[in-house]
Order: sequence, then structure tokens, then C-alpha cells
Amino acid sequence: MIMSVEPLKWKDECLEIIDQRLLPLQEKHILLKTTAAVAEAIETLAVRGAPAIGVVAAYGVVIAANENTELEYVRASIDRLRKSRPTGVNLFNILDRMEKSLNDAFASGDPVGRLLECARCIHEEDMLICSTLAEHGAELLSDGDTVLTHCNAGALATSGYGTALGVIYAACEKGKRIAVYVDETRPLLQGARLTAWELSRKSVPVTVICDSMAAVVLCQGRINHVIVGADRIAANGDVANKIGTYGLSISAREHEVPFYVAAPLTSFDFSIASGNNITIEERNPDEIHSPFGMRITPENVSFYNPAFDITPAENISAIISEKGIARPPLDKALESWMADRAFSS
Amino acid sequence: MIMSVEPLKWKDECLEIIDQRLLPLQEKHILLKTTAAVAEAIETLAVRGAPAIGVVAAYGVVIAANENTELEYVRASIDRLRKSRPTGVNLFNILDRMEKSLNDAFASGDPVGRLLECARCIHEEDMLICSTLAEHGAELLSDGDTVLTHCNAGALATSGYGTALGVIYAACEKGKRIAVYVDETRPLLQGARLTAWELSRKSVPVTVICDSMAAVVLCQGRINHVIVGADRIAANGDVANKIGTYGLSISAREHEVPFYVAAPLTSFDFSIASGNNITIEERNPDEIHSPFGMRITPENVSFYNPAFDITPAENISAIISEKGIARPPLDKALESWMADRAFSS
Repeated sequence: MIMSVEPLKWKDECLEIIDQRLLPLQEKHILLKTTAAVAEAIETLAVRGAPAIGVVAAYGVVIAANENTELEYVRASIDRLRKSRPTGVNLFNILDRMEKSLNDAFASGDPVGRLLECARCIHEEDMLICSTLAEHGAELLSDGDTVLTHCNAGALATSGYGTALGVIYAACEKGKRIAVYVDETRPLLQGARLTAWELSRKSVPVTVICDSMAAVVLCQGRINHVIVGADRIAANGDVANKIGTYGLSISAREHEVPFYVAAPLTSFDFSIASGNNITIEERNPDEIHSPFGMRITPENVSFYNPAFDITPAENISAIISEKGIARPPLDKALESWMADRAFSS
Repeated sequence: MIMSVEPLKWKDECLEIIDQRLLPLQEKHILLKTTAAVAEAIETLAVRGAPAIGVVAAYGVVIAANENTELEYVRASIDRLRKSRPTGVNLFNILDRMEKSLNDAFASGDPVGRLLECARCIHEEDMLICSTLAEHGAELLSDGDTVLTHCNAGALATSGYGTALGVIYAACEKGKRIAVYVDETRPLLQGARLTAWELSRKSVPVTVICDSMAAVVLCQGRINHVIVGADRIAANGDVANKIGTYGLSISAREHEVPFYVAAPLTSFDFSIASGNNITIEERNPDEIHSPFGMRITPENVSFYNPAFDITPAENISAIISEKGIARPPLDKALESWMADRAFSS
């Protein structure tokens, strides 16, 4: 495997994470010792990426039990963590799973130990899922291909391998030469900061463009595939992902470039029929008007800052998960994955 | 007329401009006293916007004659100015016009006076053209409409009224209530900095979004019309404009929102058949990796930084000029404008 990136690690009864707000200028690790610190790390994007948030929240429940072994305190902590971000569904799927294990954990007499076991299991599963998903996705890429991606669906967004970028890493490990274009991904520049950082660390050639340049590089024939991650996927295959994904999907279709979404089943929300039912987080306008604390706009103007958008299933060429590759009609393909998941959980 | 913005002014044998690199944080005027200073102001975007560049270059020729009344020096200065930026065609159209007047000006015995007359005439024409263009365009807007624009095609991009924004100002002056969304326009943020500044100064309600959010606001039905400016328009109606315009045109078409281009005839290049023949300026990568001097990307990554893109005629609902409103098929409509111009020049 090429050089690894370890975004989160359980260590001395705390969770250690890379502070993603500071990358790539500083590679600083921070220790999360309280549920409040975990929730705040999620809210402020010290850790981000739907799968990574899910795993961090699982450890957050262990930390809660460590802080106070009252069952009610742990339940309240789970509720606190649930409120940290609204759109990515892994957080809710994984907190549901942790909550289900509470009674057994507390009955065992060693709630911290049992919850830690459960969180570790979720963590290991995420790593395994990413690598399985990446193996499936790598089949779609050929030697010499160039991939366009948006935001960061890489090692940093997961337990350490990635979804969209995992597909690229797996293809590279098979000896395929893959080059990547990445949208900088305003407002918080996860593409320019995080994806560029982890790709360059792993020696994958990467070219950073502004979001508005994606249509041009697609038009110029520079791109063979677009691959992005997902924060929540509805039963019909509609995908909530970082703002800008929807526009990118329109441009990809216009230029007949395949548009793939790579996400683990923990990012699926089979309880909702379509993307219309997904809550889109709207974030602070200062992300637009004051990047890095420097105001760039005049006073007396308004801002609109949705953090995610919905890409309709019809714009998606395939969804890649640990189950394989779903092709349109996506609703039918996802139905079989849902049945599998119901069986295994 | 609502509160004016005066981006350029002839004053004491110099050209005074607002330094647009500093807006909106500082409203600083600078005096350009040499041809070199004029060329550098254009190159470094202290002044930008195809029509404004044209007028500034015209005064640049006057400044050259003032520096040195040798005809050859003035010719060399015109060549220097021609090299300042490649894509916007107003620069070349207007320098051609100034060059044609050189012999008469030098024969008159008062070259500076004659060239100044010519430059003043170009300046006044630009103001008149903008207001005529705006009157035509204003007919397309209804009370209560919301317009999405990209970059800055406003007072700052012209002699003081604007093309795309001129249309909005003219509609407002007729008592129509118009609201505006503007893409921030990475990398140099002319939307967030300049368009937001002049719209707020003129009390037009403005909402700033990141470029990647345009598809979403179009999808949500918030936008009635998209209006942008142009740096060069080919004979078939293909339009070179600020990077991001092409992607925006695809999104507008996808959502059936009319997409208008507003530009004076000085921005037309009837000598080229299509957008394929337009040189696209590629600018320094530091505009992407170090906005405001602060590096946001890791080392060892590449950048691609085209300053403009080409929107094909088929994505354009109408082109607005001082001649009126051209509807598809644009090549036919533009042919009659070309004939008019040939007649009047």
C-alpha cells in the first residue's frame, strides 16, 4: 500500500485526530477527551467527511461513557453528537448502532470496554469497507486515465483510505498510472487543501483548479472519469454531497464523461425516497466573506452558503460501494443492496 | 441616475483610476503617468474589464505622446499596450483606432491634443454605448426579477455604467425592483469584491455565492435571468468571458433560465469565425494557490489557471449591444451588426 494517512486513532482513552482545518500548512494532531470536544471537532470541521465523522462519533460515545458511566449521560451525549451536523447520514447510522449496544454494554458491567469494542469494530469495518469499495471501483479505471474529483473523499474523510480517492489509490496500487484534477472546493477549499495534500503525499500527480474551471477541463477532453464521495444517498440514488457536486454532474453529462459516486453503505439512507427529503446544512456566511479571517466582500451584502447539494440519480453513471458497482436504474440496484444490508445487520 | 462609480478619469495630463485590486477593502485612486504604468495597470488588473481596458489604453497612447512626441515612440508604445492582455478584444480594436489617427495627429502639429481628443471621444462613446445597451437590455427584465451574474461587467469594467450590470441599473432606474445573485468568481473574486461593492453602493440588493453554488440557485428557481459581460465575441456568437461563464451557461440551459450576454460592439471580433480562434490567457498559478498572499495548497502540486473560457453561441439566449438585442441564430443577427459597424466606422 502507498504511504498511509491516519486521520484518527484511539490513544490513551482519547481520540487523536489530525486537525483538518490547519492542513496543509500545519500537520497538527489534537486529542479529543470529552464528548463536547468531539462534537465541536465535528461542528468546526476539525474532522470532516461523512465516514470519518461516523467513526469519530462512535469513539465519542466511548468517551462519554468514560466521562460518566450513567446510562442517561451517555444517551444524552449521543443526542448531543447527533446535533453536530445534519446532512451526512453516517453520523446517524453509526450513533443508532452505538445506541443499540448501550443496554448490553451497561448490563455487562464494563460499559466503556464494551462500547470501545463496538467503536473499534466500526472503525475496522470502515477501513475494510473502503478497501473493498476501492477494489471494485479500481476496475473502472484504466492505465493512463485522468480523474476529476471534488472536495475530499479520501483518507482524511474516512478511517484512512478513502472512497473516491480510495478508488484511485487502489488503481495506482494495481500499477495503473492515474492523474487527478481536483476542484479547489470553495468555500472551505477541501480540494485544494486536503485532496491535494493527500494525493501529493501518495505521489499521485494532481492539478488543482478553481471550481469554475471544471466545465472547461471536461470540455477540453482532459478528463476520463469524474469520481466524488457522498454524504447521504437516498433510496432512489439521489446523492447529497459537497456543494458544487450537482453543477459538476451537469457538466460531466454535457461532455459525456462518466460520473461516479463512491460511498460505503453507511452513507445510504434507505428510509428516504429521494434527495428532496435530505436536510441541507447552511453554514456561516463568514466562510464566504472572510476566508482565513480576511474579509473580501463589502458590507451590506447578503450571502447564501449551502454546504451540500443534491445530485439527482439520473446524472450518475454508477455508484460504487463495498457491495460492488450499481448502474442505472439506480433505484433497482440499491434495492438489492438494501436487502443485503437488512440481512447482515 | 443612481449613485455613480467613476473608475477612470483624465486629470492633469495623467489617467486616474481606482485600483481595483484593493477594492472593496480600500478605495484608492492611482495616477498613471507613463505608458509603462498604464500597461502594468492592465497586466496586474488594477484596471480590468474589456471595455475599461480599451478606454484606458486609448489614454495610454496620449500619455505616450506626452512622454515623447516621436511618432516611432508612440507606435512602439501602442505595441507595448497591445501585449498587456491577450483575450479581450476592445484593447486591440481601440488601439487600432488610435493608431489610425496617428498620422493626422502628428501632421496637425499638436499630436497630444489630437490624440487626447480621440481618446476622450472613445471614452464618451463608451459611456453612451453602455447606456444605450443598458436601455435595450432593461426591456428584458421585469419588476421583481432576480438576476444571476458572474465576475464584474459593471461600472468598474467600463467607463462608469457597465454592460451586464448596466442593464440592471437601467431597469432599476425605470422603477423595476431587481435583486442580484453574484458568483464570487475565483480566483480573483471580481464578483465578491467588485460587483458586490458597486451593487451595494447603488443600493441594489445583492447576494454573494461561491461559483459552485450557481447550479443550486438556478435549480431552486431563485433566478429569472443570467446576464454576463464579454471579453470577445466571435462572428458566430461564441463568447469569451471570465472563466466560469461556460459552466454557468450549461447550468442555465439545464434549468431553462435565459442566458444573456451584454457587450458593446467594441467587444466583437468579426474577423474570427468562432470561439476556437480566441487566445485564452493563462495566468499565474499563485492566483489559485495563494489568494491574498496566503498559500492554501501543499507543495508539489500543479495548477491550471485559464482566465477565460468560451461559451458557445448555442448556449446563449440573446446578446445585448448598443445595436439592440440579437436572438438566435446569432450568426445571422451579428452579420447585420457587423454591416452597420462597417458603415459607421
